[in-house]
Amino acid sequence: MSQAHQGGDGRRRVVIVGGGFGGLACARALAGADVDVTLIDKRNHHLFQPLLYQVATAALSPADIAVPLRGVLAKAKNVRVLLGEVCGIDPDRRQVSLTDGTTVPYEQLVLATGSAYNYFAHPEWAQQAPAPKSIADARHIRASLLKAFEDAERADDAAHREALLTFVVVGGGPTGVEMAGTIAELARHTLKGNFRNIDPACAKIILVEAGPRILSAFPEELSTYAVDALRRMGVDVRLGCAVEGLDDHGLDTKAGRINARTIIWGAGIKAAQGAAWLGGTHDRNGRIPVADNMAVVGHERIFAIGDVALLEQDGAALPALAQVAQQQGTHLGRELRVLAIPRPFRYRSRGDTAVIGRHSAVYSLGKYQLKGRFAWFLWGLAHVYLLIGFDRRALVMFQWIWRYLTFERGARLID
Amino acid sequence: MSQAHQGGDGRRRVVIVGGGFGGLACARALAGADVDVTLIDKRNHHLFQPLLYQVATAALSPADIAVPLRGVLAKAKNVRVLLGEVCGIDPDRRQVSLTDGTTVPYEQLVLATGSAYNYFAHPEWAQQAPAPKSIADARHIRASLLKAFEDAERADDAAHREALLTFVVVGGGPTGVEMAGTIAELARHTLKGNFRNIDPACAKIILVEAGPRILSAFPEELSTYAVDALRRMGVDVRLGCAVEGLDDHGLDTKAGRINARTIIWGAGIKAAQGAAWLGGTHDRNGRIPVADNMAVVGHERIFAIGDVALLEQDGAALPALAQVAQQQGTHLGRELRVLAIPRPFRYRSRGDTAVIGRHSAVYSLGKYQLKGRFAWFLWGLAHVYLLIGFDRRALVMFQWIWRYLTFERGARLID
Repeated sequence: MSQAHQGGDGRRRVVIVGGGFGGLACARALAGADVDVTLIDKRNHHLFQPLLYQVATAALSPADIAVPLRGVLAKAKNVRVLLGEVCGIDPDRRQVSLTDGTTVPYEQLVLATGSAYNYFAHPEWAQQAPAPKSIADARHIRASLLKAFEDAERADDAAHREALLTFVVVGGGPTGVEMAGTIAELARHTLKGNFRNIDPACAKIILVEAGPRILSAFPEELSTYAVDALRRMGVDVRLGCAVEGLDDHGLDTKAGRINARTIIWGAGIKAAQGAAWLGGTHDRNGRIPVADNMAVVGHERIFAIGDVALLEQDGAALPALAQVAQQQGTHLGRELRVLAIPRPFRYRSRGDTAVIGRHSAVYSLGKYQLKGRFAWFLWGLAHVYLLIGFDRRALVMFQWIWRYLTFERGARLID
Repeated sequence: MSQAHQGGDGRRRVVIVGGGFGGLACARALAGADVDVTLIDKRNHHLFQPLLYQVATAALSPADIAVPLRGVLAKAKNVRVLLGEVCGIDPDRRQVSLTDGTTVPYEQLVLATGSAYNYFAHPEWAQQAPAPKSIADARHIRASLLKAFEDAERADDAAHREALLTFVVVGGGPTGVEMAGTIAELARHTLKGNFRNIDPACAKIILVEAGPRILSAFPEELSTYAVDALRRMGVDVRLGCAVEGLDDHGLDTKAGRINARTIIWGAGIKAAQGAAWLGGTHDRNGRIPVADNMAVVGHERIFAIGDVALLEQDGAALPALAQVAQQQGTHLGRELRVLAIPRPFRYRSRGDTAVIGRHSAVYSLGKYQLKGRFAWFLWGLAHVYLLIGFDRRALVMFQWIWRYLTFERGARLID
């Protein structure tokens, strides 16, 4: 072990890139160990992404679902948080380069850089169809949604007004379903009586999915249930409807043109940077193949976890879920407390869940399925529980109960 | 009354420009009257400005102190909210022009455009020394404050680190005092243990005031108390210290140079646009002189209320306070319910208050004074009460109690 790769008192240096579910879990598992840990993130906060769509739809404030990384790790005296953006890795010199020109040496490196939305061959679509990934995205979507109603209120032309009141969500995964359901609730209930020239309840909410069914990761029965539930809420669900083009006035699909001013993207993700820094192999979604102990193939000192890692278990790649990242982070952190080769990791699913709207959600774990009111209640309970900190739990729970009773949304800000 | 200045059913049209304390109070007082009311604001929300400094210092989220104007006025069916920016008034044709080229006719017009911070002869200083006036400003200040600590954590050079950890607040009015006190609490308590290379408690917080005392609108005894309280909290209060120059690295004052990366402005306000649109007289702060019934001198159909109006009572101009604007708005709204010349308004002060820090505030009403723990408690109670909506009251109260118990601040976001 060379001098540079040790801490001030000769301790082993572990560097973690990314403070999402995987990276933060890894840092927490390393707290108090005889290791110098550096957690690098370009943002100062850990974001509870599963609820980001609620920020995008004015139900919650960004700070309700974000915790400062320094605050969470304040008591882990061996963990240092570094606000910076990684731009490269030098495996030979064992150091990470930041965009400000500095380098951070490591003895062991954990890549937990997460994922971004996938616009496939059309990155330029991100302009017209933002996806809820960061707080800035969510705020942007929130402003677009609310601004569309404002503009419709003032529009003289009927066709223009209709396009303004048409909201298209692309992608029938959990995020797309949640977004479409919530926009329907916003239009039908929250904004009721707020306008004088338009009736917000007349808004068209269209969910387009290229495949034959929505929530394709769930059993078919739950997909059917979700379609029915969405349609009852007034969402126009269009299956087998791939997007072929996007512009400022709407989108072209296989099934024809849709004029819409607001388009929200939720169609598939791709791994964030990571593979490019290593110059190694990766799958078509940019994921880095790792061994069963999360070591990057060909790099014994480098590990990848979460959405950026491609780990096969029982013949299938583990999905890009918060619980996978978190379990991997915790496992790897515990293993790295001592200097040894980490033991293999095994993912134990706690089940998949998606919420559709009021009283309506789905949950699936192996053969076990749940849908409707009880699944919806459990979804809420689980998500409140998974938030970090008593204050955030209390704030989110209060706002949910308030919204449940009044249909009001506390964060209707255009800014 | 010409056709254009009436509503669809021939009703009188009242247009209110600005949805702050004055404009919103006026619109609410007109709810249900036999009048067509249009409330124009460039933002979709009413902002509870007295607590904006708490957003700037990461204690509250923007949505906690902002309510959507449409939501507040949903039940006032005769009130229409228009999201737009006014750029001119034509008193002869009785219409308001918006930046998007449309015009809004009025029979009676209420100007409630508020105020902006006054950089006196140096508008360019706004760049280096932002003032907490809008939500965007508050977010920008919050990010600057938190980023300064982040950069200090990484700084190698001692002088540079010291400049990064020096925070200067310009202006010893209530906003300046509140900002300085809160930054001190942030540095000494909230961020404790969050860093590895710096001790945030070593941050220097300097409050510079050009005049001989801070809180000059309060009795001298309370000013002295405030200085003592700030100094006990670790704030360096410098009186008679006028700012002469500002740059990216600090500021020059009459008493010498201060190197500081973060400078926050809170020194005096000037009226927002309004006088310019009318082309009439105004005082040196841009306020429009009004008669005792708030009618603009020389314009019997136009009224001005709040910070944009200059109304003398008992020989002195009424101060730029939320309670003045609110009382004027309510009075004028009630008077305008019927078509007649509004009766004179008389301001009844409920007292002035400013908070310095934990357990420390001042309150003054005529000969009656209050300071310390009890004033602080009353200040909190009054501000929670004045928020609009049960949900916001509950959210703010919960976050204050949580912060009181833990010193934690829920909105430490750099975004």
